[in-house]
Amino acid sequence: MSLDETLLSGDRLSLARLLTQVENGDPQARPVLDRLYQYTGHAHRIGITGAPGTGKSSLVNLLTRTIRSTSAKTVAIIAVDPSSPFTGGAILGDRVRMRDLAGDAGVFIRSMASRGALGGLAVTTAQLVQVFDAVGFDLIMIETVGAGQAEVDITRLAHTTLVVEAPGFGDDIQAIKAGIMEIADILILNKADLPGVENTERALRSNLEMGYSGAITRKARHQTSAADAENDGNEGVWTPPILRTIATEENGTVAVWKMIQKHYRYLQSSGGLERLLRERLCKELEDRVQANLINEWRDTTGTFKMESALQQVVDKKWSPDQAVDWLLHSN
Amino acid sequence: MSLDETLLSGDRLSLARLLTQVENGDPQARPVLDRLYQYTGHAHRIGITGAPGTGKSSLVNLLTRTIRSTSAKTVAIIAVDPSSPFTGGAILGDRVRMRDLAGDAGVFIRSMASRGALGGLAVTTAQLVQVFDAVGFDLIMIETVGAGQAEVDITRLAHTTLVVEAPGFGDDIQAIKAGIMEIADILILNKADLPGVENTERALRSNLEMGYSGAITRKARHQTSAADAENDGNEGVWTPPILRTIATEENGTVAVWKMIQKHYRYLQSSGGLERLLRERLCKELEDRVQANLINEWRDTTGTFKMESALQQVVDKKWSPDQAVDWLLHSN
Repeated sequence: MSLDETLLSGDRLSLARLLTQVENGDPQARPVLDRLYQYTGHAHRIGITGAPGTGKSSLVNLLTRTIRSTSAKTVAIIAVDPSSPFTGGAILGDRVRMRDLAGDAGVFIRSMASRGALGGLAVTTAQLVQVFDAVGFDLIMIETVGAGQAEVDITRLAHTTLVVEAPGFGDDIQAIKAGIMEIADILILNKADLPGVENTERALRSNLEMGYSGAITRKARHQTSAADAENDGNEGVWTPPILRTIATEENGTVAVWKMIQKHYRYLQSSGGLERLLRERLCKELEDRVQANLINEWRDTTGTFKMESALQQVVDKKWSPDQAVDWLLHSN
Repeated sequence: MSLDETLLSGDRLSLARLLTQVENGDPQARPVLDRLYQYTGHAHRIGITGAPGTGKSSLVNLLTRTIRSTSAKTVAIIAVDPSSPFTGGAILGDRVRMRDLAGDAGVFIRSMASRGALGGLAVTTAQLVQVFDAVGFDLIMIETVGAGQAEVDITRLAHTTLVVEAPGFGDDIQAIKAGIMEIADILILNKADLPGVENTERALRSNLEMGYSGAITRKARHQTSAADAENDGNEGVWTPPILRTIATEENGTVAVWKMIQKHYRYLQSSGGLERLLRERLCKELEDRVQANLINEWRDTTGTFKMESALQQVVDKKWSPDQAVDWLLHSN
């Protein structure tokens, strides 16, 4: 069997090896990715995001167990945690999680400990998703810590985005603060057995009713041009539901799984699926072009040249703009 | 008087106009920035970051009042709030603040409502800082919402970074979560009259003692090479102090102002000031080179070419990498 055939047959070891190559930016992965690309486009990509402490990872585990026990679908999980800009933040719960779902050949878990190779986290995550999609996983869960722009970029890879909240953070709702509620297709109120759950749900609901999530989100995510805006009528409106879950009870995750499927059907029937595909690929091409331009420039411009320019700026002989002109346009 | 002379003489209207040009990426600003650059390098740049709800902005106002009433130093404040990726997040408190410090010719407040022109927020903020520095402001405060990588990038512009915390977010400390505690030179425990202040301070302190802030920070911020690491001995060690403040009492901000000056003296005597300058300019040159490369590419590559490439990828005739190759290397 060729490597492609081995991968497409579901061999976990070859898959793990390819994922590592992709994560490290190994050029060997490139031809494999090129060949596998034609097999993509069948997976349902589910983004799960939420602040630390909301029990996001446990929820993903429980949800995966629910999906595996009630359907024939296979699940790949990509856990992305770039939380700390300096320490790189590997995922602590990863071993626990591995144990939890171990032995199920229909589940594959990968955590991104690195910051992403060429092009950063978003590009690398996109490539990992493509690999999982190509080799036939039905559902791909992309789990990120909801903390900023980087997470929002990653969430753009998903068809269906779950934003996880939990009571007990005082009156403040983490997702509203971080601006990630606007990207929610489904809102999960996790740890619903904790005190304060009513208040948190009320706050989430009033935000939804203010159109903070619904209206803005649909516009921002689904429209790329004025022409798209005109087509909006065809798509109907998806109002993000709020679902309660408790880490120890599977009732909640059964409802979540049903809602995820409902959202996918909504995307299929409304044309949203194709629109999301084009948007995502457009963003991905732009990200990669940028990454390549920068890397090509780095490869052709020596450290010495950079150092010379820097010294001129430190000495205030050149402004930063003048140094940049010289770096880019002198030979 | 020439425009430069007008600016250097402290004319507020010309200054405001130039800042707007810089923020909009107006090419007219370019020659002015180039000429003004030689006058930079005298300001003390102070970064202030913290989660929403910590009372960061009020603290900045009170601190500014303290500085103005106890010293002859002039203060420029740049408030950066890119919190929401979709709504753009203008600063609500801005009018309140304006009123608060209005009428003092030694204070200039500018909020970045936009996402930054060419090169994004970090590059634009760097340019605003350079303008304030050149026209003679002694202190430049850069206030950001501590939420992710973008904020950390902006904080790199500062000599002295204040991270603001407040009790009342449950047991979690926002800065630790977001990974921004690692960049603190001074930790401020604001709203110190609220219940829970002891717990929050204990949590901050134990994090500091774990070396979470001190050791890692100093390495990450001050070392750029192995050679630098060897020089570490000369610099001594700055252990981030924790200072309590209350929005209604100036006792706290007097102590903060003293500590800010102490940190600046530490940087001067340890050689840290020069090291930070080189690091900052190196990062700035790289950011600008990247921004320019991308913009030049956009200007020379038509929308039609991008659309063609996208269609090939949507149709799965090309992988994203193959499309990028074609976009970059075909003519």
